[in-house]
Amino acid sequence: MSAGTTNFVRRIPDGEDRERLTCADCGFVAYENPKIVTGSVVAVEGRVLLCRRAIEPRRGFWTIPAGYMELGETVEEAARREAREEACAEIALDGVLALYSIARIGQVQVLFRASLARPGFAAGPESLDVRLFDWEAIPWDDLAFPSVHWVLRAWREAGPGPLGPPRTNPAEDLRGTRPLAPPA
Amino acid sequence: MSAGTTNFVRRIPDGEDRERLTCADCGFVAYENPKIVTGSVVAVEGRVLLCRRAIEPRRGFWTIPAGYMELGETVEEAARREAREEACAEIALDGVLALYSIARIGQVQVLFRASLARPGFAAGPESLDVRLFDWEAIPWDDLAFPSVHWVLRAWREAGPGPLGPPRTNPAEDLRGTRPLAPPA
Repeated sequence: MSAGTTNFVRRIPDGEDRERLTCADCGFVAYENPKIVTGSVVAVEGRVLLCRRAIEPRRGFWTIPAGYMELGETVEEAARREAREEACAEIALDGVLALYSIARIGQVQVLFRASLARPGFAAGPESLDVRLFDWEAIPWDDLAFPSVHWVLRAWREAGPGPLGPPRTNPAEDLRGTRPLAPPA
Repeated sequence: MSAGTTNFVRRIPDGEDRERLTCADCGFVAYENPKIVTGSVVAVEGRVLLCRRAIEPRRGFWTIPAGYMELGETVEEAARREAREEACAEIALDGVLALYSIARIGQVQVLFRASLARPGFAAGPESLDVRLFDWEAIPWDDLAFPSVHWVLRAWREAGPGPLGPPRTNPAEDLRGTRPLAPPA
């Protein structure tokens, strides 16, 4: 029951125009579509909540509470669940801050601006540590992913007022195809 | 090679907390996450472009050009591709109009406001017909999905000016769990 024993091949199913991952034994087609990551920039009195990852990829690096949306949820519910799981935090969303495409890995990221709905947070099982950072103290060289840089800058630029249209990929990586820089 | 012969079962993989669709023969885990539908309200001189569906579900009903995002695309590229495939139209996006969760069927819809990048449109292979409708002439009783109603209302309310934050699910269906009404 390991990935190495599976018998999946890429073939074009009848009536389709592109290859799909198909079980050569039983014909099951595993449609692979982009996955949605949802998360939040949670701020408390101007400081930003970051989680130090306890899991790969990028174990030991800092990120916002975010993760893969599951079936049966709304994007808002998924963002609140991730904050609960990774930071033991109950959060209140106040709008979509950014919408990023990471075409390299088939992700769309829907990222909210949020606050704590009640005081308190702690490291969940997927986090080594959870802390609030002043802007100047954010560990920029130890952030887990480029989109964490992007969304923190977007949050800073948006300021505290009403949110406008969601920010999208920055000009230097419009399609989200740049490889992840190797850890410093 | 039909779905009826597959041997997929639901079980909880090691180290996870919920059931996943797993091949009992080879152990392959087919992760099922929400899928992204992306599309556009395309307007030409105040009239809205709608496509009459040539395929199920909801064959014969009217919808905006929209469909499932594929791997390797950005959301913007996917929205433009769908307009090309369904309406033979080259469109220019001018921002995210709406972000809907349809939890009942595991969808997130990212819907843009758009215009024609060059004149001309026609029915693609998945459409029976493509037409521009004045607001009063929109076939409200023959729209394919609730979210088509939602996004057309959102487009109308947004007016022609700059877009603000994306609209989200309407109050009457905050999670997108209402069953599709039977065709009239």
